[in-house]
Amino acid sequence: MRWRTVLIAPLLVTGISFAGEAPRARDLGISFDGNPGPLNAITDVAGVTVGHSTLIEDLADGGAVRTGVTAVLPRGKETLMRPVFGGWFALNGNGEMTGTTWLDESGQLEGPVMITNTHSVGTVHQATIAWRIRQGEPDATGYWWALPVVAETWDGHLNDINGFHVKPEHVDAALDGATSGPVAEGNVGGGTGMVCYEFKGGIGTASRVVDVLGSSYTVGVLVQANYGLREQLRIAGVPVGKHLREHRVYSEPDPGADGTGSIIVVVATDAPLLPHQLERIARRAALGLGRNGSIASNGSGDIFVAFSTADDSLGRADQLLVHRSIPNDEISALFGATVEAVEEAIINALVAARDMTGDQGHNVKALPHDALIEVMKQYGR
Amino acid sequence: MRWRTVLIAPLLVTGISFAGEAPRARDLGISFDGNPGPLNAITDVAGVTVGHSTLIEDLADGGAVRTGVTAVLPRGKETLMRPVFGGWFALNGNGEMTGTTWLDESGQLEGPVMITNTHSVGTVHQATIAWRIRQGEPDATGYWWALPVVAETWDGHLNDINGFHVKPEHVDAALDGATSGPVAEGNVGGGTGMVCYEFKGGIGTASRVVDVLGSSYTVGVLVQANYGLREQLRIAGVPVGKHLREHRVYSEPDPGADGTGSIIVVVATDAPLLPHQLERIARRAALGLGRNGSIASNGSGDIFVAFSTADDSLGRADQLLVHRSIPNDEISALFGATVEAVEEAIINALVAARDMTGDQGHNVKALPHDALIEVMKQYGR
Amino acid sequence: MRWRTVLIAPLLVTGISFAGEAPRARDLGISFDGNPGPLNAITDVAGVTVGHSTLIEDLADGGAVRTGVTAVLPRGKETLMRPVFGGWFALNGNGEMTGTTWLDESGQLEGPVMITNTHSVGTVHQATIAWRIRQGEPDATGYWWALPVVAETWDGHLNDINGFHVKPEHVDAALDGATSGPVAEGNVGGGTGMVCYEFKGGIGTASRVVDVLGSSYTVGVLVQANYGLREQLRIAGVPVGKHLREHRVYSEPDPGADGTGSIIVVVATDAPLLPHQLERIARRAALGLGRNGSIASNGSGDIFVAFSTADDSLGRADQLLVHRSIPNDEISALFGATVEAVEEAIINALVAARDMTGDQGHNVKALPHDALIEVMKQYGR
Amino acid sequence: MRWRTVLIAPLLVTGISFAGEAPRARDLGISFDGNPGPLNAITDVAGVTVGHSTLIEDLADGGAVRTGVTAVLPRGKETLMRPVFGGWFALNGNGEMTGTTWLDESGQLEGPVMITNTHSVGTVHQATIAWRIRQGEPDATGYWWALPVVAETWDGHLNDINGFHVKPEHVDAALDGATSGPVAEGNVGGGTGMVCYEFKGGIGTASRVVDVLGSSYTVGVLVQANYGLREQLRIAGVPVGKHLREHRVYSEPDPGADGTGSIIVVVATDAPLLPHQLERIARRAALGLGRNGSIASNGSGDIFVAFSTADDSLGRADQLLVHRSIPNDEISALFGATVEAVEEAIINALVAARDMTGDQGHNVKALPHDALIEVMKQYGR
Repeated sequence: MRWRTVLIAPLLVTGISFAGEAPRARDLGISFDGNPGPLNAITDVAGVTVGHSTLIEDLADGGAVRTGVTAVLPRGKETLMRPVFGGWFALNGNGEMTGTTWLDESGQLEGPVMITNTHSVGTVHQATIAWRIRQGEPDATGYWWALPVVAETWDGHLNDINGFHVKPEHVDAALDGATSGPVAEGNVGGGTGMVCYEFKGGIGTASRVVDVLGSSYTVGVLVQANYGLREQLRIAGVPVGKHLREHRVYSEPDPGADGTGSIIVVVATDAPLLPHQLERIARRAALGLGRNGSIASNGSGDIFVAFSTADDSLGRADQLLVHRSIPNDEISALFGATVEAVEEAIINALVAARDMTGDQGHNVKALPHDALIEVMKQYGR
Repeated sequence: MRWRTVLIAPLLVTGISFAGEAPRARDLGISFDGNPGPLNAITDVAGVTVGHSTLIEDLADGGAVRTGVTAVLPRGKETLMRPVFGGWFALNGNGEMTGTTWLDESGQLEGPVMITNTHSVGTVHQATIAWRIRQGEPDATGYWWALPVVAETWDGHLNDINGFHVKPEHVDAALDGATSGPVAEGNVGGGTGMVCYEFKGGIGTASRVVDVLGSSYTVGVLVQANYGLREQLRIAGVPVGKHLREHRVYSEPDPGADGTGSIIVVVATDAPLLPHQLERIARRAALGLGRNGSIASNGSGDIFVAFSTADDSLGRADQLLVHRSIPNDEISALFGATVEAVEEAIINALVAARDMTGDQGHNVKALPHDALIEVMKQYGR
Repeated sequence: MRWRTVLIAPLLVTGISFAGEAPRARDLGISFDGNPGPLNAITDVAGVTVGHSTLIEDLADGGAVRTGVTAVLPRGKETLMRPVFGGWFALNGNGEMTGTTWLDESGQLEGPVMITNTHSVGTVHQATIAWRIRQGEPDATGYWWALPVVAETWDGHLNDINGFHVKPEHVDAALDGATSGPVAEGNVGGGTGMVCYEFKGGIGTASRVVDVLGSSYTVGVLVQANYGLREQLRIAGVPVGKHLREHRVYSEPDPGADGTGSIIVVVATDAPLLPHQLERIARRAALGLGRNGSIASNGSGDIFVAFSTADDSLGRADQLLVHRSIPNDEISALFGATVEAVEEAIINALVAARDMTGDQGHNVKALPHDALIEVMKQYGR
Repeated sequence: MRWRTVLIAPLLVTGISFAGEAPRARDLGISFDGNPGPLNAITDVAGVTVGHSTLIEDLADGGAVRTGVTAVLPRGKETLMRPVFGGWFALNGNGEMTGTTWLDESGQLEGPVMITNTHSVGTVHQATIAWRIRQGEPDATGYWWALPVVAETWDGHLNDINGFHVKPEHVDAALDGATSGPVAEGNVGGGTGMVCYEFKGGIGTASRVVDVLGSSYTVGVLVQANYGLREQLRIAGVPVGKHLREHRVYSEPDPGADGTGSIIVVVATDAPLLPHQLERIARRAALGLGRNGSIASNGSGDIFVAFSTADDSLGRADQLLVHRSIPNDEISALFGATVEAVEEAIINALVAARDMTGDQGHNVKALPHDALIEVMKQYGR
């Protein structure tokens, strides 16, 4: 029998159940710039919730399901009635993030950010609308009308991507199960089957706290990391990829070898920022990738979205809205925080991920922790 | 019984079967600038095929299905292996057109342009990938990897949009049934339940032929028209909407009255143009809307995509590609053709559409031909 | 002697001295949509000042100076210390508007909008910085650091453009002489030597007043109109250009005939709008051009900038800024106002302009008022 | 006497006369990824010429002139009649690069790229037009009509920027003196008074050679580097800025401390690329900055332009143009080359620059070579 029933319940790996199992980059002694928040996670931004649906299933014909859905809700379920300001940027647009045309135009993110595999965008799109309708009220405009934000990276090396295994119930589980608190990393949610620098990739997160004009603000980042060739990998400036050469996914790098990558970055903050400022924040994710050695290769959909939870006025149309914003001259601390958190979140994804065997027997090794520590030492870390 | 089976076969209204039934704007004596092609349709561009799946169904509970899918294939099914250059533009981004991030980045349109209702984007997205996979070959990069272009406008006034009635088989029917030749207009395909200037709207098409550097090129346009308030309507410069005041959809225009509109414009040409030039072409659709009185209101997703079938080299990665292009200094004739064809295609949609009663008993009247002719006469036409 | 001294003083034609001399489109009985403000000018937006330096001089060698500078100051001279929110859009970027990269990034317009001829951008750029420095204080960041916004259209048909006749003193005169009140139109300021639809063009202005959420807001527009071929001209929907065929500038329209046009549009409003909303406003200028028949030909630099004077918090960096904004769902009235005011401002430029003989004896006729009225009548106006 | 005559001739420092004097990063044993061309300079791209005008002058009142102009000509003087394809990107748009609106629209760079200080953009703009006119022929469109590309960074710490010391003759000297061959780095040309990571900055260059589809292509980069805070500096991944803490320019970093930076990057290549592909190349400069620790702070105008000399068909309007392009799937090697060359060019600017005392007695130290080598060793390099 080709299709075994996928058991949903155990597949919803929440941050809490997973936390503590996987080490993080700092646990290995790697140091990064800046001051992380208490969880060093996107959920350090108050109100943000994250849910994962993780689908791991072996099919009778040698195929394998290694995929999932990750949901990031800016204000938990309140997001639906109380949008947030947002902005986005594509460093290399070989990927999909639906809903960005309206995000650009309105300056608002009106629902969750969903992340899945490339060929499940449609299912997640429609299921997110259906889930939204089941909440029982039209959106803030008074219409039943949704333009969901659904992003993806390609997991076809480990996952039977053309089997369309993500179903509406998985989308619901990610949305309904989203919580604040620690966030599971590595082989979970949308990141389940991902590959990064030819090591096992997946979900990673990090955060930074900065002071601006006497107040403390948090920048939280979540990535679904699935890009890069081995030799490009730098960790905290160390050319790790030039040393850890074994178990490459593309033994003979060919022109299309980089064609299947991508990285989605979600940046959350509680700093009061206007839409054009959030677009600036989103753009900084590129510099975090730069620190880790990315060249944003042709095949990589490097798409970033940023939002701020600070604005309480959005979602009304019966009066002038009132906003606060950080003056441009004071915004650089938030830029730095974004770059730093992106840099660390990607490494966290690599450190948390585990070896995986998937579709067609493909096997991808995780970044070996001991060997990594060894290389870091050679470079004085 | 709430769900009656939708019979697919009779719902696939091809251009040929429908042609001749619906009059077109020129049949009413309205004149437009420029020289149309033989069909005055997007299919005047050789190779372009168009398919409609039209869903019309009354539900037992008073609900109604009035929706569909329209597929535009730049080279028919060959598009999958032989991409075309393309570009896009959002005049007002309150809508969705998936796949545009990659279109921007690659300069290429690698499959059909699909148009449906707002809440069926997901179904059409995934079904288009599935259809593509069934063609039996990976795309030109060697990967099974698709980022379909799916656009939408909102038909929730006449259609039970939250019933998600578009199914994969309707997508297949639109794609498989796409043909060259005359294109059905009005209440067909994705345009089935659309409303435009508070008259019944839908699909419209037109074309222009121009000479550039001694060669003849065709610009073909297809629109799914679903935008505008009555008083804004101008036809060939005549303020028709100020005279034909009856049967308005929004009897008391309120601030959100325009919130449900949108127009998708597809521009095809056989003129050799590079991606950045096609983006320029797409942008000209705004001027066609301007002629018809549009203000691109906040709620309108006015999103335009343009492609050229001239380039034969795309889809290969084993050698340098060779392209031809119209010099920028000679491109204005194509800009003019685009503006003119968009202007006429929208009016063709209005003229072809017929009265429709739909969901919740909502009724939308078509533009009354006799009254229109009367108004045109008053203004010396 | 080739260079006669240009007398500056009499060349500074202020709105007041000129008003009353030139008729406006409405004086000819042409009707437009919407409700104009008291002056039907950009200066209906409180605080906005406009200054023109007009250079008209015959040179001994048959050359002629027919050019100038127009300055639009969002808050008069206060603009320098109190920036305004702004946004911009290029419908066809065959032109220059400096300062837009920072406008995009910061969301702020930090000084005046200057408009001149193509080859005088440099002089105006530097002179605007020098003028700014002479005001005696650094800008709001505490630095002497300016990125002026200088736009242009090409007047080389009537003006000895390669003579670089605009000098710093002309820039100063436009800036220092800027006033509120009526705005001179036609052959003045930067518009002195301009040509539009092959009639004499130049400066035009118009405004609209709309109610949003119980408050009254003004949208004011100023254009420097220098684009278009005769047959494209529509006035209030009437195809005027197809009837008034005499005295064309390009007797044998050739491919490059449209290569020298352009239009700069400045949109001012007192409605509270954020930068991304002002970019939306700027984009609507395209629809006003569309109503008048523009195809945005290749040679036309159609560049638009919009700003709002409503925000009082900008220019500080020592505290959070507080902003108000119109909800997106209520913004469409301002879109409509923009389209309408742009449509009328261009026609005002044509109506106010007068016949001019300039460089190399080139002569350009103004739009003949009587003949225009005749054509309008034929079309029931 | 405040104004001493600036002697032009000795100030034109050509690459050849300067080469050999200043060491480069590789001379200090620093290693970078990839294979440089013979000169490791932008002039490794055949046809590209570079000219510097360097202005160093002490004024009687304690003021100092420390500024200049750098000209990059894609095809030497032939550029004027034979444009190149180009694209650009602003990572942070707090700066000016004129001419980009037309570059975006046309896809073509029709003249040199000029780089100077912020307040001399106007002089350089107009002088570049005047120089172009003196070449004796209109541009390829047949019109005397120029939209020069002039970029800037701010040198007001070392240079009397409000004295407007750059004059037309300096612009001419940079243009007329442009040569192929080695390129002077450090305190030369537009880079004369620049500061980078609080060390003396200025002009830097580097190149890479890559194979694509069996052919060898060169990517050359030139930067005018003037950005960054000390602690951000990474060299080849080593956190140099955390160790070399002396002689900071901003002893007490304040919020506006980063407000005066910027970097202009010019990327040249002989690889056949279309405009949209060159925009992709330009965007990769961000990743080179990321490697060096940049956060693209608010005050930094980080603006990048890329062009390709491969296309021979541009500049004609009498026939279809014929282009070649690298398929997208093969372009990543050029992306990597761009990232690598930008990374190295910035470090070359720092290594070549020398201590400078300038306006108001401000002194900026160069990166100390011995101390740098010491830090690199600590980190295993």
